[in-house]
Order: sequence, then structure tokens, then C-alpha cells
Amino acid sequence: MILPKSLQNLIDELGRLPGIGPKTASRLAFYLISKSEPDLKRLGLAINQLKRSLVECQLCYSVTDSPLCKICSDKSRHNSQIMVVAKPLDVIAMEKTDFQGLYLVIGGLISPIDGIGPDELRINQLLDRLSSTEIIKEVILATDPSLEGEATALFITRAIDRLKSNRGIGPDVVVTRLARGLPIGSELEYADELTLKRALEGRKEY
Amino acid sequence: MILPKSLQNLIDELGRLPGIGPKTASRLAFYLISKSEPDLKRLGLAINQLKRSLVECQLCYSVTDSPLCKICSDKSRHNSQIMVVAKPLDVIAMEKTDFQGLYLVIGGLISPIDGIGPDELRINQLLDRLSSTEIIKEVILATDPSLEGEATALFITRAIDRLKSNRGIGPDVVVTRLARGLPIGSELEYADELTLKRALEGRKEY
Repeated sequence: MILPKSLQNLIDELGRLPGIGPKTASRLAFYLISKSEPDLKRLGLAINQLKRSLVECQLCYSVTDSPLCKICSDKSRHNSQIMVVAKPLDVIAMEKTDFQGLYLVIGGLISPIDGIGPDELRINQLLDRLSSTEIIKEVILATDPSLEGEATALFITRAIDRLKSNRGIGPDVVVTRLARGLPIGSELEYADELTLKRALEGRKEY
Repeated sequence: MILPKSLQNLIDELGRLPGIGPKTASRLAFYLISKSEPDLKRLGLAINQLKRSLVECQLCYSVTDSPLCKICSDKSRHNSQIMVVAKPLDVIAMEKTDFQGLYLVIGGLISPIDGIGPDELRINQLLDRLSSTEIIKEVILATDPSLEGEATALFITRAIDRLKSNRGIGPDVVVTRLARGLPIGSELEYADELTLKRALEGRKEY
């Protein structure tokens, strides 16, 4: 190996990150060499201290540094709506909309090929939360518009239906799903068949 | 800001790296959360200690942790050939070939638009090294096949020519340039005009 050990070491470590191949890892490492010692200290420290204070929110299972996350502890949010997402990153994405309800991070999507069934997800926690309060009136399923996302949404819908027929929750709880259709800024010409089909199905009066 | 401070801090730090936008930074940060404390410590340490031992090689100006880098101090390398490259990353790239000569990292390419002239590069160091020894018989110009790379190669060639006519170095020192042509695995159909032109000019008997 022609590289100094500390440099090769960093390239190896960076190369373990997802989406970063050996070439990007080298490029990043050489970029970091050009930075000042204090800059490197800051980045190193940010990584070292990352997990020290992080916990799961007791209510929505997103990432937080207090028992309840900032969203769950915000009294001004509408607690009649709960949005079901797969992972904390999806919460960040949805927070860019004007959604003012609460979340529940189920921790993934049903994917038999990866060995992830409903029991690996926080679907029971969702059902428990629904049946423990009468405040929630809408469950918004915001799982990905993928095979796994659809399967998970379908599974949750059926579980909520069963809960309704067992009178675990009132019959007025509505389950909704994010709209499927053409993404903004896209061109009709390049849209795939399924997206076009869904966009047609979901058309609205203009 | 809805994210815990330590997490937002890391996302900000990662987002400062080249080629890493805010979305990739978030994804990396959430991936790092899923890693164990020792894994994070290792990465943090690798970054912290990066610059502690790194210096420039006294001979080729590449990155090393000893006065001379592993290539320059390797007696089995051919010291009659010296390859001129812009940056240390280029040394790593060229080491994947079977080149057995030595290097000189000039530290960039001539780029008037970025305010980089010949004086900002180690071209004088190259000329000094050439005139201080009679061993070097070939200077291989391995700058990028870009506008800046061509300008730099041309400048160096002229400087060496002047050195020859001043008898600073012998007339038998050859200056060569990496071949331009079609990259392996590419398709003729998609090659640009200039590459095709160079590939034709540089054709060899088969």
C-alpha cells in the first residue's frame, strides 16, 4: 500500500458508508486533508458524539434527544391526525409540507425477501395507540409508492378494519393514503405506464 | 428545527463535504445512527488524527507520513522516468498501471479563470529536479486531457525545451504525453468528436 496509514485508514472507513465507493472515499479523504485541524476536529467530534444523547421518541419512534420528540411534545399540532411512515428520514421529508398532525415511524416496510414481516414493524404499536385514545380520527398511510410500501399500507388498512369490527376503535376513523400521480416538474412523455394509470385514476375536477 | 442538535450538527458538517448535498448528508447521518458506538469512534478518530502525521514528500510532493514517500524511497523504481501529475489522487490512479518510475505532483493545473498561473504550481521544482540530476531520461506529462491539462503540458514542454537550449539538461531527455483516444469499454457511437479525432490521429499499426 503506497498511502500513509492514517490516510488509508480514513479512506477505508469512509468507503464503508452507504453510497460511497472507493473513488469517492479517496476524493473525500484528500479533500479533508486540505481542511484545517479545527475543521477536522469538529467533524470528528460530531460523529463521535452522535449517539451519546440520541434515543427513540416514546410516542412516534423517531430520533430525538428527549423522551418525547419536538413534534410529539408540540401542543399546537393536530393530534386527530397520525401519519404512518417507514423511517425517521420520511418524517423530515413530510415536515416540508404543511402537515400539522403527528407521526408514527413503523421502522421499515414489509419485505419478505429481506425477512421483514409485520411483526418486525411497529404495527402493533400503531394499533395500540389507535385503540388507547379516541382522539385520532385519521390515519394517513405515507409509505413509499413501491411494492413493499403498498403491501405495508394494505396490511395496516386490514388490521385497522379488523380493529373497527372488534370495536377496538370507532367506525369514524378514516384511513387515507398519499396520492399517486405525476411528480411536479416531470414530463408526461417520460412517465412510466403505472404512474400514468394512477394519475388518470386519481384525476380531479379542474 | 425538528432534529436533535447532535444529529443536525452532523448533517451540517457532512453537507460541507464536496459532492454531498443536504439529502445525502441526512441519509449518511441516519445510517451512522444505526452503527455501534465503537464504529463511530473509529470513524471519528480516523478523521481527527488524519492530519497529525501527514506531510508532503520532499521529493515528489505527494502525501506521506515520512520525509520521503513509499514510492520515492523505493530503490527498485526506475529513477530514469518521472511522471508529472496534478495532484496526489492522480498518483493513486497511475499506480494501478504497471508504471515503475517516479512522480512529481505539481499541485494543480494552469487555470487563469481560477487565478492559477505557472508560478502557483511546482514547475520550477520540476525543472530544478531535472537539471540537478542526469539520471532522468523521460518526463511523462500525465495531466488531464482537458483545456487546463493541455495548457499545463504545453507550458512544461516549452520550459523543458528552454532548459535544453540553455544546456541545463541534456538534449536526450524525452518529453512524452499520455495517449488520447477511445476509453476502453466505450462505444464509438457515443464518443465525442474531439476524442474520435485524437483516436484517429493516434492510430497504431495492428
